[in-house]
Amino acid sequence: MTTIIKGGKIVTASDAYYADLKIDNGKIISIGENLYEKDSKKIDATNCYIFPGAIDPHTHFDLEVGNAVTADDFESGTKAAIIGGTTTIIDFVNHNKGETLNDALNNWKRKAEGKTYCDYGFHMTISEWNENISDEMKDMIDKGIPSFKMYMAYKERLQVDDDIILKALKRSKEIGGLIEFHCENGDMIDFLIEEEKTKEHFSPKFHPISRPNEVEKEAVSRLISLAKVAGQPIYIVHLSTKEALKETIEAKKEGQEIYVETCPQYLLLDDSLYEDENSKNFEVAKYVLSPPLRKKVDIKALWNGLKNNYIDIIATDHCSFNYNGQKTLGKNDFSKIPNGIPGVEHRFLLMYNYGVLTDKISINQLVDLTSTNAAKIFGLYPRKGTIAVGSDADIVIWNPNHLSTITAKNQTHKVDYTPYEGFKIKGRVEHVFLRGHHIVKHSKLDLEESLGRFVYREPFKGR
Amino acid sequence: MTTIIKGGKIVTASDAYYADLKIDNGKIISIGENLYEKDSKKIDATNCYIFPGAIDPHTHFDLEVGNAVTADDFESGTKAAIIGGTTTIIDFVNHNKGETLNDALNNWKRKAEGKTYCDYGFHMTISEWNENISDEMKDMIDKGIPSFKMYMAYKERLQVDDDIILKALKRSKEIGGLIEFHCENGDMIDFLIEEEKTKEHFSPKFHPISRPNEVEKEAVSRLISLAKVAGQPIYIVHLSTKEALKETIEAKKEGQEIYVETCPQYLLLDDSLYEDENSKNFEVAKYVLSPPLRKKVDIKALWNGLKNNYIDIIATDHCSFNYNGQKTLGKNDFSKIPNGIPGVEHRFLLMYNYGVLTDKISINQLVDLTSTNAAKIFGLYPRKGTIAVGSDADIVIWNPNHLSTITAKNQTHKVDYTPYEGFKIKGRVEHVFLRGHHIVKHSKLDLEESLGRFVYREPFKGR
Amino acid sequence: MTTIIKGGKIVTASDAYYADLKIDNGKIISIGENLYEKDSKKIDATNCYIFPGAIDPHTHFDLEVGNAVTADDFESGTKAAIIGGTTTIIDFVNHNKGETLNDALNNWKRKAEGKTYCDYGFHMTISEWNENISDEMKDMIDKGIPSFKMYMAYKERLQVDDDIILKALKRSKEIGGLIEFHCENGDMIDFLIEEEKTKEHFSPKFHPISRPNEVEKEAVSRLISLAKVAGQPIYIVHLSTKEALKETIEAKKEGQEIYVETCPQYLLLDDSLYEDENSKNFEVAKYVLSPPLRKKVDIKALWNGLKNNYIDIIATDHCSFNYNGQKTLGKNDFSKIPNGIPGVEHRFLLMYNYGVLTDKISINQLVDLTSTNAAKIFGLYPRKGTIAVGSDADIVIWNPNHLSTITAKNQTHKVDYTPYEGFKIKGRVEHVFLRGHHIVKHSKLDLEESLGRFVYREPFKGR
Amino acid sequence: MTTIIKGGKIVTASDAYYADLKIDNGKIISIGENLYEKDSKKIDATNCYIFPGAIDPHTHFDLEVGNAVTADDFESGTKAAIIGGTTTIIDFVNHNKGETLNDALNNWKRKAEGKTYCDYGFHMTISEWNENISDEMKDMIDKGIPSFKMYMAYKERLQVDDDIILKALKRSKEIGGLIEFHCENGDMIDFLIEEEKTKEHFSPKFHPISRPNEVEKEAVSRLISLAKVAGQPIYIVHLSTKEALKETIEAKKEGQEIYVETCPQYLLLDDSLYEDENSKNFEVAKYVLSPPLRKKVDIKALWNGLKNNYIDIIATDHCSFNYNGQKTLGKNDFSKIPNGIPGVEHRFLLMYNYGVLTDKISINQLVDLTSTNAAKIFGLYPRKGTIAVGSDADIVIWNPNHLSTITAKNQTHKVDYTPYEGFKIKGRVEHVFLRGHHIVKHSKLDLEESLGRFVYREPFKGR
Repeated sequence: MTTIIKGGKIVTASDAYYADLKIDNGKIISIGENLYEKDSKKIDATNCYIFPGAIDPHTHFDLEVGNAVTADDFESGTKAAIIGGTTTIIDFVNHNKGETLNDALNNWKRKAEGKTYCDYGFHMTISEWNENISDEMKDMIDKGIPSFKMYMAYKERLQVDDDIILKALKRSKEIGGLIEFHCENGDMIDFLIEEEKTKEHFSPKFHPISRPNEVEKEAVSRLISLAKVAGQPIYIVHLSTKEALKETIEAKKEGQEIYVETCPQYLLLDDSLYEDENSKNFEVAKYVLSPPLRKKVDIKALWNGLKNNYIDIIATDHCSFNYNGQKTLGKNDFSKIPNGIPGVEHRFLLMYNYGVLTDKISINQLVDLTSTNAAKIFGLYPRKGTIAVGSDADIVIWNPNHLSTITAKNQTHKVDYTPYEGFKIKGRVEHVFLRGHHIVKHSKLDLEESLGRFVYREPFKGR
Repeated sequence: MTTIIKGGKIVTASDAYYADLKIDNGKIISIGENLYEKDSKKIDATNCYIFPGAIDPHTHFDLEVGNAVTADDFESGTKAAIIGGTTTIIDFVNHNKGETLNDALNNWKRKAEGKTYCDYGFHMTISEWNENISDEMKDMIDKGIPSFKMYMAYKERLQVDDDIILKALKRSKEIGGLIEFHCENGDMIDFLIEEEKTKEHFSPKFHPISRPNEVEKEAVSRLISLAKVAGQPIYIVHLSTKEALKETIEAKKEGQEIYVETCPQYLLLDDSLYEDENSKNFEVAKYVLSPPLRKKVDIKALWNGLKNNYIDIIATDHCSFNYNGQKTLGKNDFSKIPNGIPGVEHRFLLMYNYGVLTDKISINQLVDLTSTNAAKIFGLYPRKGTIAVGSDADIVIWNPNHLSTITAKNQTHKVDYTPYEGFKIKGRVEHVFLRGHHIVKHSKLDLEESLGRFVYREPFKGR
Repeated sequence: MTTIIKGGKIVTASDAYYADLKIDNGKIISIGENLYEKDSKKIDATNCYIFPGAIDPHTHFDLEVGNAVTADDFESGTKAAIIGGTTTIIDFVNHNKGETLNDALNNWKRKAEGKTYCDYGFHMTISEWNENISDEMKDMIDKGIPSFKMYMAYKERLQVDDDIILKALKRSKEIGGLIEFHCENGDMIDFLIEEEKTKEHFSPKFHPISRPNEVEKEAVSRLISLAKVAGQPIYIVHLSTKEALKETIEAKKEGQEIYVETCPQYLLLDDSLYEDENSKNFEVAKYVLSPPLRKKVDIKALWNGLKNNYIDIIATDHCSFNYNGQKTLGKNDFSKIPNGIPGVEHRFLLMYNYGVLTDKISINQLVDLTSTNAAKIFGLYPRKGTIAVGSDADIVIWNPNHLSTITAKNQTHKVDYTPYEGFKIKGRVEHVFLRGHHIVKHSKLDLEESLGRFVYREPFKGR
Repeated sequence: MTTIIKGGKIVTASDAYYADLKIDNGKIISIGENLYEKDSKKIDATNCYIFPGAIDPHTHFDLEVGNAVTADDFESGTKAAIIGGTTTIIDFVNHNKGETLNDALNNWKRKAEGKTYCDYGFHMTISEWNENISDEMKDMIDKGIPSFKMYMAYKERLQVDDDIILKALKRSKEIGGLIEFHCENGDMIDFLIEEEKTKEHFSPKFHPISRPNEVEKEAVSRLISLAKVAGQPIYIVHLSTKEALKETIEAKKEGQEIYVETCPQYLLLDDSLYEDENSKNFEVAKYVLSPPLRKKVDIKALWNGLKNNYIDIIATDHCSFNYNGQKTLGKNDFSKIPNGIPGVEHRFLLMYNYGVLTDKISINQLVDLTSTNAAKIFGLYPRKGTIAVGSDADIVIWNPNHLSTITAKNQTHKVDYTPYEGFKIKGRVEHVFLRGHHIVKHSKLDLEESLGRFVYREPFKGR
């Protein structure tokens, strides 16, 4: 049976127009005026926007980091995602030194399979370099995983040296891969943490002091040089500073191909949240993430970057830890606080409200930044990422007239706080279709079984 | 009777997918798989792209400049446009000092009415400032002309001082107007022309010497400062230099709203065309336009700018003069050569070939740069500028498999040369629909009466 | 009779060393260890620095500006200068439209002759352009006036258009002249003053709002472009903003020859002095000067500029008006307040204290910035500007151990306030010699007759 | 017995004037008009310049690098130095991993002691990090060695990671040290060498391909970030690229303290010397040094940098290997060619000719760049680096009227070629005094015993 969504305003990365939309067999089969079919299911979208399902290419579900496992696993994480209008997530497979990439992948498949409420894919982390890993990169591409991740921070554990970056970039060029980089200079961070500790600075407010803008700027600048030498595009995750953004703008001007991602936290929260005169307010730990929150001047630069298409993607870096019992592990030492915050549920709502409704980005840019660009860069397009004939019927019907407030209590995330507590929200995700399945109905998950599927992604082709 | 275009690949500013398309009453009414209607006219678009009709927001038809009138008037110009896939042009009303804007507009309406083969609009030039003109700017908006133009060059005739620019920007902000600027420092040009003449340098190869990059860079830099002080967006026509582009990128980074246009000539032709060792080859005059052709390094910068969305629009600045009898007026003095070149017919072909097929821009960017962005910036969207349900059926069916060569002989332009002589072209405009009228059939104009209409444009709303 | 200064530490633009110094016939004739001559006059300089007499190349004495004449004339101004360690000033001849340069010069000679307590020279202002003025520029060079000044602000009165700047630069290149520029965009200022008045903003705190950083940045940027086109060095007076400084640094990097001057007020006073919540504190008018005081971030940039030799000269732009009776002329309209502040007396003291003693510049840079560079740029070197054998014995003996406070009461300036009221000063000008004449003794002027002479300056030769 | 040098023009970093100069007991004791003393030795310097002895803070004498020992040891190197007007050199102690700094120093002392014809000092290289080395850094300061060197290239051997740089900078801040950095990204170089070899590119023309500008730019950019984080000044040796220079200019603008050195080879020789179409001309190996020779655009940028005081020092990086028998070790593999070229003998001559006589720098800048600045930065001032009362009588009498040509045959360097073969030279080092000893007479070394002494240098104090 077909479904017809009637009366809404369809919004894509470039267009916005009123039309009906017909779904059959999980796909969009037509868009037109006054579509009709006798037996089809009708969904009324009058006064609503019809968006392509959002894609969040940066989540960390069921991730163990030293002393803690993220509060959200694939089940709670993808429930939160789809409730928030996100129909596809791409999570990061963690790769431990000594492990094969295939083994790492299998671990992650086990964590996800049968538990996800939205579609999902994986990026593969690479934490060391040898012949095997070089070979396995090709396996990953063959298995629908054309994107990799390397860290320029977390020395001894994940940090890779410049020579490895060069070799991996070269390899990615040969096989159609794209490498994402966590850009912070890990040596600087370790030096600065040590400096703070030497001064007996242990409270969480010193976390951002140990990761100043320069830490990100240096790593981005260096990475750009390495990519230039290797002749290969790069993707920068969670860019947070004015200075680093400037580096990317300049390099693109000179012809390099660089994809830039930022996150809602770097657009909506600033470093005043770390203020704590007496170093006694441990609640500040809720905002301990890396990179840390930045200054208002950075926030302004990022919004300008979004407006002018200098930034490609808004993802979440969702990596949630409970305040009680997890964040508190660093009670006596900020460097022991598990880093990260939740966000997969609220990204789209927040960006609609604090981006579109405040005129910082257009409604088309909202779609591009939260869905279409991710689909294109990560090999999902045109299956996902747009409302077009032939695409998967991953659809969000957005009711712009509902008012609510974000609170930890009413969230789907399985974590005991939200950094966006008290944020006013206009509009809500009224309905969500995943490949034609009507999963969210009037903002409620209407299904108790997992329908999410692993999505095979195409090799990277460049912009 | 409806028309159904079948089997093509629809391309918009963000999407590309296979679907059929149904037209009724001049509008697109549906897009879908296997559309069918018994009585409809069928057009086979198998193996073809279906693009929205292109928009050229920068033409000069039937323009008198001192000693000459452009070779193309609205008839030949719009015929060439539609043959080349452009279904809407926006021409510039010339405003002489002392004249009212309304009188100037009426002159231009007379030149165009009943003679155009594609739809058209006007921008209004402003060459001086007083209360009346300030008032009339509002009249123009009311008449569907929300865009204005000012010149920073051509002293005594068109050049306006900074105080006028500031006042006009302020006024445009009040009424919903957008001002386009010709950015060259006219004082510098006059000084440099004088310098050349003092040296008895009269041949056309000295034209670019009198307008070095600095001339454009200075004007763009100053304009950006003026716009910042006035707090109003600006549009820069025919940007041609690396340095000026850099200024716009920087200013946007800091939050200014700036629209940047470039032209095929600045992307495909370079200043080696001015080489003339003995100053005896007057053919160089064919490339006398302002700004002049630039260096390869500028060309590279502009392509990078397009790729990264640092540039918004590719227009033509079509302003054609015959080589024989017109360009030759400057035989003994390059500063007397009528400035300008033709291009409205070839823009889309050239950009498809030398942009898309060479991987410098994507096929979606082609649509954005030659159609969608112009529609959005100049108040035509969503009526024009896209393939979407509800939009005007301004449609180009592009056959990608045809081979040809641009020559003066086979062009529709009514001018005796083309700067793109000998350029190889793959693909052709197979069919063009203007508001559902099938005007171009298999690359031939199939209609002898003018169907073009003046299009009322909405006030400027910003990005 | 010779004079021997014994036991001091001689400081030049590059050196600092202990030695005695012998003066004969107005010149320095030797420098050495334990100099001795039976009949010579001995001056004890133990524990003191011996500096070359300072040069202030930017003063306005006895200047009429519309509604007021500066409080200081050449007598009080040069007394203040020499008391403060400045042995040469260069004042600006005002040129009114319609006047010849020679007539303007004669007026200024009359104002100065026989009244000055230090040596003096003139720069010639040019406020319009014609053949005569072009010819007279050469006269000025011949008369020892190789420097000119043009204003980019003060429309209708002094402001010159780009074409005049280009012609004057070209002319200065031919004859060995250097043009100094007041860099503010006068059109922007008039627009912004009008904006403020429209809002009924008349109190002096709105003065800086009418001259934001952009006003200077634009003028400097444009001037640099004009100078590049004309191929001639330029000198920028009273540079005050971070943005404008950046422009000069960039242009020099690309090969242009640019001299940059700033003033103590832009290094020591910031725009918090304009704060006036109720617009009732007219005292703010004491700081009404152009360019206005800037932000702390600009101050920091200027000090960095000095440290790194990105700035060449610290002059005063001394232009004093009494608060009572003169500044108050603008009681009801900030744009009527005579612009300017005093400073010739305190420049050296302030820069020694707030530059050298705070480690922002070295003691050699102090000499370079307040004396040597001015001598070199303005054709006085090696006669003046250093302590070297053969140079004029213009010498300051500086006692570093005296403590005092700047107040209006104890100043020599003939004006009723000082912007540096209350500034603590360590060290004082103990003795001053002008061409061997011991004029200031233990900080007191010991002479009631004028000994200052007009100094013929050599044509400009470039760095 | 005193010596009087008569009739010359004394040139310092800021002054130039005619005066006589008296030397006693190795020191300058007076400067004056017509100095006379009955018994003193008179040297006629009529029509000559009198310069302070040049200082070359960057030489490598008697250095073993893998497969070769430099052609020049301390004897031939310092003979060449003093013949060329250089009275002090500072050589680099090589530090091997595992060795103590004190042991390394002792090795170098042995190489130099009793063999030098000019004065000398040492910089201490640091190639690894541990507690001992941190402690020994203080020993070095105490022994008159306040400057250190670290390499960002030569992985496995000398290259240090960011964490070591940070720790060493912190340590240098505590003890009054200054660290010099070889700025090339060693990982990039290894990657690029590998790339070339994979393509079977073994001839010396591929050397520069393996070290493009980006290699230096990245290292300089990163170093600046590290220094900012550590809060300590840095010194960059042999800077060679436009891009790297830009990084330093920007950082200084923002307040960092950075010293920049370049070398004659980067100012006078360009990468066209590597041209070798058939890869058969091994003579190209004569120009194999690191960084490699750069493009004309870099050369222009460096000269602009010198002119504007954006660069502090011109040193040589003298590191000579014979073409025959040493450079030829890399006959089959460019990466095996010993890197380096000679220059200590010709630096001053070249800079006088190709800097001063071509108006690229002033004669005062020549002195500053080749002598005074080095003395100030490296703790030798005012003992050395200037012509002032009380300073060491290290003096060069320069005859500006002699004509010659640089050739390998007539050089003092003990190496079988010179990269400056055929360079025309105007002027010559007529006489040289080292601490009052008249060592070079009419361009000939007049002494067969070594008089050079180790010079204890003061701790680093900053600009």
